[in-house]
Amino acid sequence: MQRTGLSRSTVNQRVDALVSAGLLSQDGEGAPTRGRPAGRFAFHAGGGVLLVADVGATGIRAALCDLAGKVSAEREARIEVADGPEPVLTGVDELFDQLLSEAGRNPADVHGIGLDVPGPVDFASGRVVSPPIMRGWDRFDIPGWFASRYDCHVLVDKDVNAMAFGEQRSHYPDVDHLLMVKIGTGIGCGIIAGGQVHRGADGGAGDLGHIHITVDDVAEEPACRCGNTGCVEAYAGGWALLRDLRAAGRDVSTVDEAVGLIRSGDLVAVRLARRAGRILGEAVADAVNLFNPRVIAIGGQLAHTDEQLLAGIRELVYRRSLPLATRKLQIVRSQLDPRAGVIGLALLVADVVFAPDLVEQWIDGRLSHRVLSLRP
Amino acid sequence: MQRTGLSRSTVNQRVDALVSAGLLSQDGEGAPTRGRPAGRFAFHAGGGVLLVADVGATGIRAALCDLAGKVSAEREARIEVADGPEPVLTGVDELFDQLLSEAGRNPADVHGIGLDVPGPVDFASGRVVSPPIMRGWDRFDIPGWFASRYDCHVLVDKDVNAMAFGEQRSHYPDVDHLLMVKIGTGIGCGIIAGGQVHRGADGGAGDLGHIHITVDDVAEEPACRCGNTGCVEAYAGGWALLRDLRAAGRDVSTVDEAVGLIRSGDLVAVRLARRAGRILGEAVADAVNLFNPRVIAIGGQLAHTDEQLLAGIRELVYRRSLPLATRKLQIVRSQLDPRAGVIGLALLVADVVFAPDLVEQWIDGRLSHRVLSLRP
Repeated sequence: MQRTGLSRSTVNQRVDALVSAGLLSQDGEGAPTRGRPAGRFAFHAGGGVLLVADVGATGIRAALCDLAGKVSAEREARIEVADGPEPVLTGVDELFDQLLSEAGRNPADVHGIGLDVPGPVDFASGRVVSPPIMRGWDRFDIPGWFASRYDCHVLVDKDVNAMAFGEQRSHYPDVDHLLMVKIGTGIGCGIIAGGQVHRGADGGAGDLGHIHITVDDVAEEPACRCGNTGCVEAYAGGWALLRDLRAAGRDVSTVDEAVGLIRSGDLVAVRLARRAGRILGEAVADAVNLFNPRVIAIGGQLAHTDEQLLAGIRELVYRRSLPLATRKLQIVRSQLDPRAGVIGLALLVADVVFAPDLVEQWIDGRLSHRVLSLRP
Repeated sequence: MQRTGLSRSTVNQRVDALVSAGLLSQDGEGAPTRGRPAGRFAFHAGGGVLLVADVGATGIRAALCDLAGKVSAEREARIEVADGPEPVLTGVDELFDQLLSEAGRNPADVHGIGLDVPGPVDFASGRVVSPPIMRGWDRFDIPGWFASRYDCHVLVDKDVNAMAFGEQRSHYPDVDHLLMVKIGTGIGCGIIAGGQVHRGADGGAGDLGHIHITVDDVAEEPACRCGNTGCVEAYAGGWALLRDLRAAGRDVSTVDEAVGLIRSGDLVAVRLARRAGRILGEAVADAVNLFNPRVIAIGGQLAHTDEQLLAGIRELVYRRSLPLATRKLQIVRSQLDPRAGVIGLALLVADVVFAPDLVEQWIDGRLSHRVLSLRP
């Protein structure tokens, strides 16, 4: 009330609307709403759900969550993101249907949807923009896809942004500056600056994979998927590692198989992983110089290569960055991965759809029902 | 009033206190305070001043400003920052005394002080931390130095942070993401992310000068002032350019002389400037990939080399960064430089000392007089 500037009776009236919409319940556990000194409120466990889907290059992980962003059920499916938006989003629809049906819910119970993709996103419009690897997705209207079935806000973000947000909120709530580096088929980076996701002017921030690195032991710079040569990803991404393992006579066809080979102690594979770590470490050291983060969390399939890759990254960062920036720096494996995407998305959607500030704005009459997806 | 949650009479009482302290006047021009529907207020022109000093490697530029951060008088002095804090801050004191005396003011009129230095700063405590080139300054208590003479808030920041803030606020108020690259004796970068200065976890963000670059045409990586080798600064900083010009038989002893030689069209100097631009461009391209800024403003003495250096930077950024991040990117010369530091500091201090939000907090009773440096 102190924050809304509304009279007690007006606040009570609006809170009552939330309660009667089945979205708030008194004295529940969880985050209380502010400004009602007489009682604490929580989002009602039976009052609604969120749906999220982490879309990777070769798979989807979808989850059903409560209104506070807590994941209650998950499902996975294989897809190829390069097949384009229609088949992939049809796959998302199917997972969402299964999750709702298993929980005895229907689309009208869904108060927010979150989706992440392995490419740059214009966050305001929810459209993928100029994705290097997502053929057919450029400018595709993802929120529009869901509008026919769901009447709620649809948030779309780059996968590493959701992962970074999930990691920070879940494990480093006191850390304002965090980088989440994902080493999978490609290489990307989510940035938390000042406690918020830093998406940049065009949704293109965190493009660690296409930083140029000069490597002494190659005669010619390798070609990258982006059209340039000598990118970090063209040396250290999963697809580049597969290329090099095959060139060395190893029979591998997926990044998971490459990870298995490294973990088995295959000397060529281990040597390539250490080298990939050092090359990636050069780019991470640049990011440390520029951002001065407190925590760098490493996720993605290749983070699971014992300590081979992390050792290379740490070696270069501590050699290359100034002591001021490394003294208190933690370089750690992601604690949430491979669930960082869905967990981060759930928290992002919960923030956007039911943030205390937004609820207060709604109470204050400044937000429409549409944005809060309320139907009181 | 709507924002403070206070009754009209309480707000009026507090605003009256500001007016009677000589800090606000009714119906003045400038930024109005909020929440007083009956009248507009502005900080009183005669009500107080701010003092700021931009401390560079070899000089100080000090300024007297009004409470809105508008510079009204400036003075310069030569110093060597490596002489340590006492002689340099004594120089600042002298400039402040002259500025006050010329304006018919005294220390009691000063409501905020801002100082920037060419090194990392712990913003919360106002202390320089682990500066690579500021001998004797580590952990020096700069606010404490001014406490004996001035009873007001003292803000200390890294020079490029103040420059970036000044550039953004003065010329790109609608741009949320901006980089300010300073190419002087050394090389640094101020970062505006989401409209705010990004200082990083330890005040070390924006350390563009010590990003490692591999250059093909050198047999051995040059040593840097930071103790590493192959840093951007060791190729493209003013000190490195002087080293290379002297090695080529040119008789130059200051960065300004090197700039003169480049502008005169000396072929060796022009070639070195283009090369410095391309090397710096590699690091700026990394920053574009990571931050995705809308504007990059180039300042510092070496920005004044006609277009030689900028051409090299643009060449590499457009070659190296993804189209998404460069499509709308502007790479321009700083419009405020060499006054970007004092102008940015003045705006930073005005924000901290007299931001509408802070004034409202003060009206609201949540801020002490000390922070607002008011003596009603």
